Amino acid sequence: MSPPDGSGRGRPRDESREQAILDAALELLVEVGYERMSMVAVASRARASKATIYRRWPCKDQMVVEALRRRAPEAHVPADTGSLREDLAAEVRLMAEVVSGPDGAMLVGVLRAASESPQLAAVIQANVLQHKTEMGSCLMQRAVERGELADIVDAAPLMEVILAMIFMRLLVTGEPLDDAFVEHVVDEVALPLLAGRSGRLAESSNT
Amino acid sequence: MSPPDGSGRGRPRDESREQAILDAALELLVEVGYERMSMVAVASRARASKATIYRRWPCKDQMVVEALRRRAPEAHVPADTGSLREDLAAEVRLMAEVVSGPDGAMLVGVLRAASESPQLAAVIQANVLQHKTEMGSCLMQRAVERGELADIVDAAPLMEVILAMIFMRLLVTGEPLDDAFVEHVVDEVALPLLAGRSGRLAESSNT
Repeated sequence: MSPPDGSGRGRPRDESREQAILDAALELLVEVGYERMSMVAVASRARASKATIYRRWPCKDQMVVEALRRRAPEAHVPADTGSLREDLAAEVRLMAEVVSGPDGAMLVGVLRAASESPQLAAVIQANVLQHKTEMGSCLMQRAVERGELADIVDAAPLMEVILAMIFMRLLVTGEPLDDAFVEHVVDEVALPLLAGRSGRLAESSNT
Repeated sequence: MSPPDGSGRGRPRDESREQAILDAALELLVEVGYERMSMVAVASRARASKATIYRRWPCKDQMVVEALRRRAPEAHVPADTGSLREDLAAEVRLMAEVVSGPDGAMLVGVLRAASESPQLAAVIQANVLQHKTEMGSCLMQRAVERGELADIVDAAPLMEVILAMIFMRLLVTGEPLDDAFVEHVVDEVALPLLAGRSGRLAESSNT
């Protein structure tokens, strides 16, 4: 007995099934790498039919991107704390929390898989970095409106540097991503970089 | 029959044997990680006696540090090109060449091993980052003497950022470490960061 609206499509998707499939995809990605991660293997791991999977995700890229997006913190409007320094600190803290949290090990696995797969790297590059850059632009726009920054500047190098500093701790030095790290990034790197790129910070940080 | 000076110690060390032992140590480090890399296994791989190895390197740390140091480019006085921009570009180019060169894969392996071993990470941190920071301080000192920088600033955050950007390309995005990258690092990050930290660059880069 179909519901009155008569559609199979109208039926709410089984969210927990979808999530199980995406979880299986990430597990496999970390275990075998991007090239060897097949849709067939994902289907088998998630006890789903290939048809179900292909109907929902026509290709591997889309599946991986969606799996990563769902693990990312809610797409959020960055907190407006009233100052550029605190806005930046909130973003850096959030990024540090995500990579240090329960999904951190999975994320390291994905990044390692990416370093061996130009295709996956490009997918991550386009989705993560671009998303962070949009966020950074939003913070800078606000700072200009508040009169804290003289000009708006390209957010891409700033976000690249912040991500690089986080990844270096995560993947190389193993140093903690704690409050001291957040302050280090914001006060010793992000704000001076913005001051050097824009016509200085109106409200200078710690000259 | 000992030589007249009466010492086994006075004898010149067999450099090629030492190098073979250090090469074996790095190979094992990359293959099995820092914790499981034993002096016994290094001895066996290099067909050397344990006694020979322990006489030369009392502990694993010292062996790994020396192996890495020998693979690093000659300890060098950074090129004095006559301008801070070109001095920085030369250093970034050199770092990019080393990690992209024949030893690049080995280096990635060592960095991965380090991310799982706080002890090795600390060794690398103390030796590599500190060395680079001394180099950075030297470049800044020169820039102050030339009148390009108003004040000398702490080189550590700058060198951390440069290394982080290199490692992010190497370990995550796989993007090329080419001339465009060197210019990106120098013009969009390093010089603005210095300008923001010091009292501006006397000779401004590209406002």
